[in-house]
Amino acid sequence: MKIVIDAMGGDYAPENVIAGVVEAIKEFQVSIALVGQQDRVEAELKKHSYPRDMVEIVHAPEVVAMDDHAVASIRQKKNSSITIGMGLLKKGGYDAFVSAGNTGAVVAASTFVLGMIPGVDRPGIGCVIPSLKEFNLMIDMGANTAAKPEHLLQYAKMAKVYVQEVIGRSNPKVALLNIGEEEGKGTGLEKEAYKLLEEKEPAFIGNVEANEIYTGKADCIVCDGYVGNVALKVSEGLMESVGILMKREIMRNPIAIFGAFLLKSTLSRAKKSIDYAEYGGAPLLGVDGLVLISHGRSSPKAIKNAIRQAKREIEHNILVKIKEVL
Amino acid sequence: MKIVIDAMGGDYAPENVIAGVVEAIKEFQVSIALVGQQDRVEAELKKHSYPRDMVEIVHAPEVVAMDDHAVASIRQKKNSSITIGMGLLKKGGYDAFVSAGNTGAVVAASTFVLGMIPGVDRPGIGCVIPSLKEFNLMIDMGANTAAKPEHLLQYAKMAKVYVQEVIGRSNPKVALLNIGEEEGKGTGLEKEAYKLLEEKEPAFIGNVEANEIYTGKADCIVCDGYVGNVALKVSEGLMESVGILMKREIMRNPIAIFGAFLLKSTLSRAKKSIDYAEYGGAPLLGVDGLVLISHGRSSPKAIKNAIRQAKREIEHNILVKIKEVL
Repeated sequence: MKIVIDAMGGDYAPENVIAGVVEAIKEFQVSIALVGQQDRVEAELKKHSYPRDMVEIVHAPEVVAMDDHAVASIRQKKNSSITIGMGLLKKGGYDAFVSAGNTGAVVAASTFVLGMIPGVDRPGIGCVIPSLKEFNLMIDMGANTAAKPEHLLQYAKMAKVYVQEVIGRSNPKVALLNIGEEEGKGTGLEKEAYKLLEEKEPAFIGNVEANEIYTGKADCIVCDGYVGNVALKVSEGLMESVGILMKREIMRNPIAIFGAFLLKSTLSRAKKSIDYAEYGGAPLLGVDGLVLISHGRSSPKAIKNAIRQAKREIEHNILVKIKEVL
Repeated sequence: MKIVIDAMGGDYAPENVIAGVVEAIKEFQVSIALVGQQDRVEAELKKHSYPRDMVEIVHAPEVVAMDDHAVASIRQKKNSSITIGMGLLKKGGYDAFVSAGNTGAVVAASTFVLGMIPGVDRPGIGCVIPSLKEFNLMIDMGANTAAKPEHLLQYAKMAKVYVQEVIGRSNPKVALLNIGEEEGKGTGLEKEAYKLLEEKEPAFIGNVEANEIYTGKADCIVCDGYVGNVALKVSEGLMESVGILMKREIMRNPIAIFGAFLLKSTLSRAKKSIDYAEYGGAPLLGVDGLVLISHGRSSPKAIKNAIRQAKREIEHNILVKIKEVL
């Protein structure tokens, strides 16, 4: 097993990426191909001790910036870590690709270089989301912002396999994100997707509203990428703002500071159970290869956990299993 | 000044509605017309003491249920508290209408009975949202799930007036909710709306991503109603789930319970600063009358604050000022 890592991807690359890779090698005994600017990668690796034979460095002179235009960057920077890394996966001998880089560019490169799985029209970004019960998968979080009903059906089929194999829960239920529970709610897309899912997806349980995303009502939630992206980012922004607000209020009052001190370990345990970094990355489903997209602000721990998740995907032979249901 | 209240609207009607009305009368000295089933309204009023001459009861035999189909309920239940209440506002002598009832039905009745303001094509539900800085207005939260670029421009103009007059901040800035900051992001709607806003709205500052909704980057955020509804409900659901999760973790540990006890007043102050109930209701903008929609689960305090907000709208002559800019 060998996992390709985009050493240059993310806001804190290559530092955080390489720190996470080193941790992952030690903890999971996986071989890694680090793709990036060789001198920078080597300089960063020197800061760590690790089994040398587990790491291959593949030089990629160009870097796709976090704010580069997705498609243009892939067309123009043929020697970026994203494109070269994806080429390794395509070539064979490598099993998965992990990047904390420009999401749009990773999606574009995956589509161009790997191509789509037969029976899937558009890639979808799945997001492993915490809930009051267990982890669930929501798809799409922004790869496809003009989804058609059949795309949502394809997402549902892939999400089921993912929840079953990687998250490890049998008989996952599928729901459609909508602005009401009843059939007939939503825009044209949701109305048609409801009918299609009802007809063709036995695990379909109907609509869920956005306030049910984190209650664990459904194991797989399918939605258009625009809406999914908004839902994800609202959640992120809200948690950050509430955190800032709480700190601000707590710091005004010495008794509250002491109270917060007593709560520290409990709060960090609660935080851990909802932290994306604990799970790893967002699987890009539908392309013909295992691709995981990590958050641009990934910590070393988030990178390490994304590698663990890639390992799990490989071990469960998820690509073959997804192909079987499509 | 006389405010019409849907006595039958909401999950806890008429109890919570009437309790909130009684508080509002005492605190703000406003006259109220309570529209609903007379016997139930009278029975509920008997539980309270209040200046009798401030309350008029208007009998409405029918009730629109929270899960009734919006348009059908308005067509079929001509004598519901929503339709009769809206009729009072239309007739004159009444200044605003507040309901915690079926949102879709309130939107439909407002549109049918009051009609639109000249220059506005579709109503939009504004939501006063807390942020790290001040309160802002986001529109639309679900009245119009098939928005066109010109609708978003109209929302922007109305939102500016609202923030200026009711929230009380000069020179409000307008942003478009989108999945990226740069121009050219999003679906067809967002791309076209960006151009239109840039050309015709001097206060337009560009896109904001959903993680910026609560940071206070923009005073007015415009979006399609489908996306706005998802953003609002995700926020609601996330806060609830995190609250449940925190309680669950805290109850496992006696030290944490003590810590939480010391934090209680601070947490409730923080909660108050982000609680929708503290602000009141969601203004339905674009219809030819002042309509406020409160949350279905409104507490008496939320109803009271919605009445305060209606009073402020009336005092600032907001309907006339909105008409002037359109």
